[in-house]
Amino acid sequence: MTIAAALEALAQLLGQRLSRSKSDLDLHAASETYYPLARPDAVAYPRDTAEVSALVRICAEHGCPITGWGAGTSLEGQAQAFSGGVVVDFREMDKVLEINAEDMDVRVQPGCTREALNTELRATGLFFPVDPGANASLGGMAMTRASGTTAVRYGTMRDNVLGLEVVLADGRVIRTGTRARKSSAGYDLTGLMVGSEGTLGLVTELTLRLRGQPEAVTAAVCGFPDMHGAVAAVIDTIQMGVPMARIEFVDAAMAGIFNAASGGSMPETPHLMVEFHGSEAGVREQVETFGAIVADHGATGFDWAERPEDRTRLWEMRHRAHWSTLASAPGKRALVTDICVPISRLAEAVEETAADIAASPVTGPILGHVGDGNFHAILLFDPDDGTELDTVKALSHRMAERALAMGGTCTGEHGIGIGKQAYIKAEHGEGWQVMGALKAALDPQNILNPGKLVPPRN
Amino acid sequence: MTIAAALEALAQLLGQRLSRSKSDLDLHAASETYYPLARPDAVAYPRDTAEVSALVRICAEHGCPITGWGAGTSLEGQAQAFSGGVVVDFREMDKVLEINAEDMDVRVQPGCTREALNTELRATGLFFPVDPGANASLGGMAMTRASGTTAVRYGTMRDNVLGLEVVLADGRVIRTGTRARKSSAGYDLTGLMVGSEGTLGLVTELTLRLRGQPEAVTAAVCGFPDMHGAVAAVIDTIQMGVPMARIEFVDAAMAGIFNAASGGSMPETPHLMVEFHGSEAGVREQVETFGAIVADHGATGFDWAERPEDRTRLWEMRHRAHWSTLASAPGKRALVTDICVPISRLAEAVEETAADIAASPVTGPILGHVGDGNFHAILLFDPDDGTELDTVKALSHRMAERALAMGGTCTGEHGIGIGKQAYIKAEHGEGWQVMGALKAALDPQNILNPGKLVPPRN
Repeated sequence: MTIAAALEALAQLLGQRLSRSKSDLDLHAASETYYPLARPDAVAYPRDTAEVSALVRICAEHGCPITGWGAGTSLEGQAQAFSGGVVVDFREMDKVLEINAEDMDVRVQPGCTREALNTELRATGLFFPVDPGANASLGGMAMTRASGTTAVRYGTMRDNVLGLEVVLADGRVIRTGTRARKSSAGYDLTGLMVGSEGTLGLVTELTLRLRGQPEAVTAAVCGFPDMHGAVAAVIDTIQMGVPMARIEFVDAAMAGIFNAASGGSMPETPHLMVEFHGSEAGVREQVETFGAIVADHGATGFDWAERPEDRTRLWEMRHRAHWSTLASAPGKRALVTDICVPISRLAEAVEETAADIAASPVTGPILGHVGDGNFHAILLFDPDDGTELDTVKALSHRMAERALAMGGTCTGEHGIGIGKQAYIKAEHGEGWQVMGALKAALDPQNILNPGKLVPPRN
Repeated sequence: MTIAAALEALAQLLGQRLSRSKSDLDLHAASETYYPLARPDAVAYPRDTAEVSALVRICAEHGCPITGWGAGTSLEGQAQAFSGGVVVDFREMDKVLEINAEDMDVRVQPGCTREALNTELRATGLFFPVDPGANASLGGMAMTRASGTTAVRYGTMRDNVLGLEVVLADGRVIRTGTRARKSSAGYDLTGLMVGSEGTLGLVTELTLRLRGQPEAVTAAVCGFPDMHGAVAAVIDTIQMGVPMARIEFVDAAMAGIFNAASGGSMPETPHLMVEFHGSEAGVREQVETFGAIVADHGATGFDWAERPEDRTRLWEMRHRAHWSTLASAPGKRALVTDICVPISRLAEAVEETAADIAASPVTGPILGHVGDGNFHAILLFDPDDGTELDTVKALSHRMAERALAMGGTCTGEHGIGIGKQAYIKAEHGEGWQVMGALKAALDPQNILNPGKLVPPRN
């Protein structure tokens, strides 16, 4: 067997760091969503780029599939080895290699998590802004083009990765980008790799852009009598050019789940959760402008979080939304949708989605990074009841179709993986075939994360 | 001849809009820099995407080279047809198709210039921020990943193109991106096309991101006793997080040329030219912070431009720097360098460059978008004196090598074209071969702008 031959050679390369233990295989079989388990044949724990390159050369020689693994927090099965082969877990490549405070950039290994990086940066006055909620690995975040609560101000991984070191499907190592802030030197290979879900190469190093910790930070929660008012307030805020650092929407159901999870007492109505970054005067000005806008839309019950610990509690509650929702419905699993639409269509998209869910037999709180036009429904279903899975899939399908009809995208930040191939085809048409041609050019044997993102190989 | 057969079929397709007149061929033979003339075999003026697609299919059938032409303002020979064939001039595809004021985006045809777009946007309260100086076409700006004076605040074309319609080398038409502000739906084909210099496809439509016109705008010029003070002030300003809209450096020689060109009386010392955008209070705060920083570095002679007409005069003087420099030395031509380095190395890079030029027999004023770490030397040479061309090429070579050694790029905004292939190889190493593989995958016949950007085909 080709995989068996590869594993034998990999064991020689990595020794104990090629694991075939049941517990390791089980740990790397699951994802955080409802996809079936996919046990790899082995898990590799390389320590440096040279080892990753040697590993890939061995797999290329034997036609053995390779799937990268960061923190295992992706939501579309990106890190699951559905074709078997070897999962490359980057947990031993988790260093912060070089902080350039003057240039506000940092070199890290792919297994470093965003929280670990920010802990290390604390004394420098700098921070890495992209925040998908989960404590994902930075390599994984690059590969899914992750974003999250702060993208409205600081951009997504597309905007915050300056360069990469990548091991290609034949084991060659390339460096993309530079430490300069811009370049017109040829095709944007950094941009091509970011969001490629491990199908074009394995990232072994990232150069990331950092930001200065703002002089002043203030956060707040406010309630609205209805969903329309909350979403209309977001649209006005964006159009007024208020440089919000975060602006998150949660619906009434989600507010109730937050209360249950954290012992709070938010009114069970739609809410916005916001954060302002800037100079003292700048934040005051933003708060005033925002206050006037939301008052026009009937906002009440402002709850300010000025102290760092209050802000931490606020955003932890938000970040735990997925788990709190699951905890609110024991025995259920979740299908998390992820559409993103032009801001002018946001109210319509959220309201039609809510109406769809209300008319269905399942429940699904809605929340999202609405400053980008991106929102999620956490659709709950009973995994032992096939009709409920069909129901949530049908709801998800309608959301994706609605997003595309509105000029939006089927995935704002979770990616394609195995879950959204039908939608990417609808979204990109012939462009999806172009993606397949690029994949074939860089990975002719289809060993890098096969079965994900691109069209199936004929 | 294959080109002859293609031209016959193209004449049938386009009628009078396929021109072989001497004046048309001459007009499309030159560039704004020192490269030799390259007369195409014909110039096509398509009117819509369907015509561009039909044109490309004909050229593909006959193996006829195709080179796109916007405003002809690129600086590395990107629009010159060195392999002959047909130049596709987009002047008849210059419409603003749809302004979405609520979503702050716009759809345009590639021949629309940035000034024409901003004129059309004037009543909307929005503007398109990317400003390379020249009144380039937006299609051309996308293809060279242009930037210019405002990139420090608003980003480059990479950051401001939301989506494209592209005719591929086989005539297929794809749409990349959506109108959503972010997406994780597969490979970033928009990003791959932006900066590809017409080697992967012809852009037939662009969706661009717009910005709100700032409530308050103030510009200023201030002088410094020496180059070091001016550059150090830029570094401090960037590191303090002042959200400058523009921050441009000119050296003493350039100040003298400005005086000669516009009848001004700037002291002939290094200067910074700056612009602040924001709310009234925000701009006041920026001005105060900036004022304190530059005072620390010995700045004197602040000249404020508060009125729109004064700002226009200021930036026109800056935008005409290239032409004013040529006018200052009748009979000379210019080689314009374009390196970009990490901001911490900027002072060193500028000073070493200046010392190099001072030690050479030629002259070359230095100016640049220093907020990005990007600067140019306009190296003047006598085209009839071969040794002067060799001298400026050697200076340019040393600048590129210095930029790479500092972790920067050989081109911040002008691109590769035919002028920088040696440097892109040094900058990207094996990555340049990857670019060649992508090109071969999407344009196997090598008919799209052959000879530019990627490695020569074996």
